[in-house]
Amino acid sequence: MPSHPFSVVALDVGGTKIAGGLVTYPEKGARPDVSRPVSVPTDAARGGAAVLDDMVEVARTLIAQATCPVIGIGADTAGVVDPETGSIAYANQIMPGWTGRAVARRLASEFDLSAANMGDVHAHALGEARWGAACGLHSCLMVGIGTGLGGAFVLDGKVLRGFRGAAGHIGHTLHHLACDLPCACGGASHAETVTSGTALCARYQGKSFGDELDPSCMGAEIARRAETGDERAAEAIEFAGDALGQAIGSWCNILDPEAVVLSGSVVNAGPRWRYALEQGFQRQALTPLSDTRIIEGALGASAPLIGAAENLLDSIDASAKE
Amino acid sequence: MPSHPFSVVALDVGGTKIAGGLVTYPEKGARPDVSRPVSVPTDAARGGAAVLDDMVEVARTLIAQATCPVIGIGADTAGVVDPETGSIAYANQIMPGWTGRAVARRLASEFDLSAANMGDVHAHALGEARWGAACGLHSCLMVGIGTGLGGAFVLDGKVLRGFRGAAGHIGHTLHHLACDLPCACGGASHAETVTSGTALCARYQGKSFGDELDPSCMGAEIARRAETGDERAAEAIEFAGDALGQAIGSWCNILDPEAVVLSGSVVNAGPRWRYALEQGFQRQALTPLSDTRIIEGALGASAPLIGAAENLLDSIDASAKE
Repeated sequence: MPSHPFSVVALDVGGTKIAGGLVTYPEKGARPDVSRPVSVPTDAARGGAAVLDDMVEVARTLIAQATCPVIGIGADTAGVVDPETGSIAYANQIMPGWTGRAVARRLASEFDLSAANMGDVHAHALGEARWGAACGLHSCLMVGIGTGLGGAFVLDGKVLRGFRGAAGHIGHTLHHLACDLPCACGGASHAETVTSGTALCARYQGKSFGDELDPSCMGAEIARRAETGDERAAEAIEFAGDALGQAIGSWCNILDPEAVVLSGSVVNAGPRWRYALEQGFQRQALTPLSDTRIIEGALGASAPLIGAAENLLDSIDASAKE
Repeated sequence: MPSHPFSVVALDVGGTKIAGGLVTYPEKGARPDVSRPVSVPTDAARGGAAVLDDMVEVARTLIAQATCPVIGIGADTAGVVDPETGSIAYANQIMPGWTGRAVARRLASEFDLSAANMGDVHAHALGEARWGAACGLHSCLMVGIGTGLGGAFVLDGKVLRGFRGAAGHIGHTLHHLACDLPCACGGASHAETVTSGTALCARYQGKSFGDELDPSCMGAEIARRAETGDERAAEAIEFAGDALGQAIGSWCNILDPEAVVLSGSVVNAGPRWRYALEQGFQRQALTPLSDTRIIEGALGASAPLIGAAENLLDSIDASAKE
């Protein structure tokens, strides 16, 4: 571990934006601080090479702004990231030419610094596990519910990456309420199609998962309407909450985490959603798991940046031991 | 690690029988050998105290038969086993008074030897991971399909026990083909109700999951009839294989194991079942997971005994490090 204080340049790359910041570790054992937040559009359709070039430029800007030594670059990105190399093992066609991109290697060689890359949901969970809502827990299942549904399992402070880097795709698990609904991944009957923000909106708007939706009426607005007597809104909120709760019970029956950490925009869908979720969970979780705590993430948008920085520190530690 | 050769008394306790044997480690790095197999009925209705007394007697018999030093007792049992203490954290009413039973402590004090206890499915998976079909793999998901459906995830040679010892209950995960079917656990829509041997028989016999079944026509016999032109048998076999394959795809989307290891009596349901399973798997597994190997266990009934012995060795190692 380098001497404090030091900073890590953190980059969080999703389909819509590249977010970045300096994650600074002021002293041993103290929670890192995120400063100099920056965000540029990903503009994914330009392709993976252009996105990686932009990552380099965001990193350059942040390095120039640092006021203490920058020890490396921690990135997290959309797509399945190879756990060994930090390259993109697989990405769908939303970002053409992203598959195969050697993200960590490029960042390292560009700045002659240590660099690491991991999946964005994995980084989010690692941040919450190391310094957020799941800090100090034996294990947690992070459930991210926004436009889609993603997750990550953390055990003893380490994210389960999977053999191919593809672990945690809880959105693509079977769900009886999604019977035969086609999923964006090519499968069918998946949890994402009945629990995500998109699924909630589609149900309220009387549409199917995958249809074009009216963007003026999304999650928080539907929750608001549910509280002011809109019965259709209430039904959609309760259905989505119950469906997610049942799915969480099902996942806990496999993983038995100490706690479940919720994050993402749908977490703001109000008490009616939350109540339905708890009821759904109790319906499906095995008796010995019924006391599993379901809590909310504490770090918000800083979580993936902190997680990406922690992953970089882990990779430096691992190199030192070799 | 003690000096070779040495033996571990292994006890495998299910709802119907207590199986035991001597697991002997002839030399460093060599596969252990299981000898002196013994089996007595569990007779679970007598209650947990009587079952534990019988475990002690089986262990006593095996210790007397050992021809090299016995270094301890490795047990695995039905029920949820506390990962810290080896006591029964939770068991259903099939074995009254089993919950709370201090299995490892009793075995240790009775013989003044090291003792450890773990869940039976966890032990099975550990055996296959250390010395069987999954030996040397990064990770595996063991899927046990007999009367019921159980499983265990092994990463880097360690079983995921879970915070409460309850990890791996893959039978109690949501399945769209089981929509609203009641499960023995109290939940509903669970994979066990459409994929297990019981589910296969119920379907072939035109009954519901949970109904009394004709025991003269179970898994292998249904498979045989399917191959000789019984269309109803073929349909039941294909349905169960497809349902299990889809569920395996779903679990792999969470865990991303290097391989899936199948064990249990239903594995003998023939090529028609196996083909349906593979097709079902490909339908639900995400693209980067499509090359996940699905293999069969190699150790049979020795797997849990070897796993329980390995767990005992792990606990001795852990004590030595403290």
